[in-house]
Amino acid sequence: MRFSQLVLGTIKEMRPLDSVNATLLQKAGFIHQTMAGVYTLLPLGLRVLTKIEMIVREEMDALGAEMLMPSLAPQSLWEQTGRLNEMDVLLEARGGNKASRAVNDTTYVLNSTHEEVITPIVRRFRPSYKDLPCAVYQIQTKFRNEPRPKSGLMRGREFRMKDLYSFHATEEDFKNFYEQAKEAYRRTFNRLGLGEITHEVLASGGSFTKEYSHEFDTVCEAGEDTIYLDEDNNVRYNKEVVPDEVRKKYKSYQAAEVGNIFALGTKYSQAFNYYVTDGQGRRQPVYMGSYGLGTTRVMGVLVEIFHDDQGIVWPLAVAPCAVHLLGLNLDNGSVRQRAEAVYEKLKKNNQDVLYDDRWQASAGEKFTEADLIGIPWRVVVSERTGKQVEVKRRGEDNVQMMKIEQLLACL
Amino acid sequence: MRFSQLVLGTIKEMRPLDSVNATLLQKAGFIHQTMAGVYTLLPLGLRVLTKIEMIVREEMDALGAEMLMPSLAPQSLWEQTGRLNEMDVLLEARGGNKASRAVNDTTYVLNSTHEEVITPIVRRFRPSYKDLPCAVYQIQTKFRNEPRPKSGLMRGREFRMKDLYSFHATEEDFKNFYEQAKEAYRRTFNRLGLGEITHEVLASGGSFTKEYSHEFDTVCEAGEDTIYLDEDNNVRYNKEVVPDEVRKKYKSYQAAEVGNIFALGTKYSQAFNYYVTDGQGRRQPVYMGSYGLGTTRVMGVLVEIFHDDQGIVWPLAVAPCAVHLLGLNLDNGSVRQRAEAVYEKLKKNNQDVLYDDRWQASAGEKFTEADLIGIPWRVVVSERTGKQVEVKRRGEDNVQMMKIEQLLACL
Repeated sequence: MRFSQLVLGTIKEMRPLDSVNATLLQKAGFIHQTMAGVYTLLPLGLRVLTKIEMIVREEMDALGAEMLMPSLAPQSLWEQTGRLNEMDVLLEARGGNKASRAVNDTTYVLNSTHEEVITPIVRRFRPSYKDLPCAVYQIQTKFRNEPRPKSGLMRGREFRMKDLYSFHATEEDFKNFYEQAKEAYRRTFNRLGLGEITHEVLASGGSFTKEYSHEFDTVCEAGEDTIYLDEDNNVRYNKEVVPDEVRKKYKSYQAAEVGNIFALGTKYSQAFNYYVTDGQGRRQPVYMGSYGLGTTRVMGVLVEIFHDDQGIVWPLAVAPCAVHLLGLNLDNGSVRQRAEAVYEKLKKNNQDVLYDDRWQASAGEKFTEADLIGIPWRVVVSERTGKQVEVKRRGEDNVQMMKIEQLLACL
Repeated sequence: MRFSQLVLGTIKEMRPLDSVNATLLQKAGFIHQTMAGVYTLLPLGLRVLTKIEMIVREEMDALGAEMLMPSLAPQSLWEQTGRLNEMDVLLEARGGNKASRAVNDTTYVLNSTHEEVITPIVRRFRPSYKDLPCAVYQIQTKFRNEPRPKSGLMRGREFRMKDLYSFHATEEDFKNFYEQAKEAYRRTFNRLGLGEITHEVLASGGSFTKEYSHEFDTVCEAGEDTIYLDEDNNVRYNKEVVPDEVRKKYKSYQAAEVGNIFALGTKYSQAFNYYVTDGQGRRQPVYMGSYGLGTTRVMGVLVEIFHDDQGIVWPLAVAPCAVHLLGLNLDNGSVRQRAEAVYEKLKKNNQDVLYDDRWQASAGEKFTEADLIGIPWRVVVSERTGKQVEVKRRGEDNVQMMKIEQLLACL
């Protein structure tokens, strides 16, 4: 990917915003704020999101099949579960053109979660206990009527999420699956580089269920959740479920919720009349679980964790590219030729490369931008590098000269 | 992918709907109608859409960088171009919960196209004529206040689209790019299996531009557009731009619009005050183009074209899987073992396989469903196939016995 052609660029002067991720992601050209809580993912940003979502997808494929539900739902589905006034959904989407509005004055809900959509679908295709268990998931744009969007990608009105739904003939089967889902979440956060600082936390079930839910919370100064750690029993609680008098016994810290899984019980299957007859001829509502993971929020949290004074320090697994190739002194034809050759060689070896091929930008600008963007390997070709390249890892000070073959062996 | 675990299944009894694609895609378990004009893509359907979008993505990457704009936009952006009352946009998305509505009564537009969102972004990052040309695209869910949704995936309220936008310092540069974009579209439709029956058609610019636009229309009985062919000059016109008295001179046929590209001129750059100063010091508005391609619509059109009385006949490039493996007589342990071995072997050889591993379903049901689903290679393992497999291509009558190695050589 050539900087000159493909990236929409960094921003030189910008006053700091309300959070590190909002500031760095916008300054480094990963996102652009289209309105409060609503962001455009610029090319570099979409690359990071795609890598995060690919990791999530690979881990979720072990649990169920991927599908894609719509953003719009008829209001009637949400009335059936009584959640229309419990949740901050966006609704009343209508026609803007008066003529068409007269024909189509349907009131839609913009889904913030999909229990109301998926339950009737699975009921239709899986009518018997023999057809269960069934689990499906999607990775999709969600909407929420967030009154106070803030903290960049961490709290928005439009965001991306993975949501998985599971359906079971017995509570025992559900419980087994729930534990499998937890394992899949742990593997996912490990691969995203957040494993060691992301913990299971008991939290409220909100409008989903009266049971506890399990959150996955990443230790993070900028996080909105206060977590209480019961060290004796090694159990963590979200502040919302800890009585005042118990709080002083526990250690507390700030964290960002990156996932949340719910034992839904039979609330939604009953609302949609999804019953199956078991082996003994008993008619029973289906047990359900719901498993969310915010992919754009993970992107924000990653930046909150992995940055320094110069900019972002992406873990390799989610970096927009593995290599940031800087061509300096490109007005010199032979340097340009060498830089192009290194670019082609890296591409031929299946490396993701961002190639800064701009003539006008100074070496200083390019170095500053490379630190800001935070790609793991910085590789320089200049008048001084001869037949070698200058290699530096983002976040380390050590600069090494090496042959391109040596570099390839490192990557 | 195992039928038993992963697919939401086919529908045995269904009355025909208003179009072939609506009927077959729903009957075969590719899509589910959540409301009029709003569909869920079930696992098989999402696989087809993903293959279509990957082909589109590969061809568009040659023109510009992929990004992802939001579905929500502030109404003010649409007021700036005066399109709010010209287009059937969905708007007035609001909070459902009264408390939150009091805080957040923002009126959003649900974008049906993104000129209003992209122009201010590119203006910010590409302020000088030296920064141009610039082209970016996205593949994304769109919304339209469609008063009469119909024909399955061909005319909906929520649908998927690829939209590309280009920005140029001169009209000449724009015109060159426009021709490149046409070439990319031709390559895309060729790869989708629609090349021979998809033609460039002169059409109205609608609310986008006063110029002609270029549509790409696929010859299709169920298509909504009437196309007039001027055989002498080998030029095709959409009915909307052909005067009555001229129509009788031309041949006409029905077609479905699968792409539409627009010379936007300087309408949007002027609306958003996007001017650049050229090499001679002249301040000029930027020239823009907009290039749409409906990916869910393509999926519907493919089914309209590629089907027979038994079901869908997917072209290999967009089929949900390459191979549909049917295990018959699976209550026989040695047959089951052979079927599983064939499944593993195919997967190990990187083949996409749908494995019908259900015990209950009869051979007849499995064959009928395989024809309905329309995967290109049907492979049977049963009590009668011994060390071989029975192979049949969808749409052909010839059934062949062969060793698995022979099959792998065919794929």
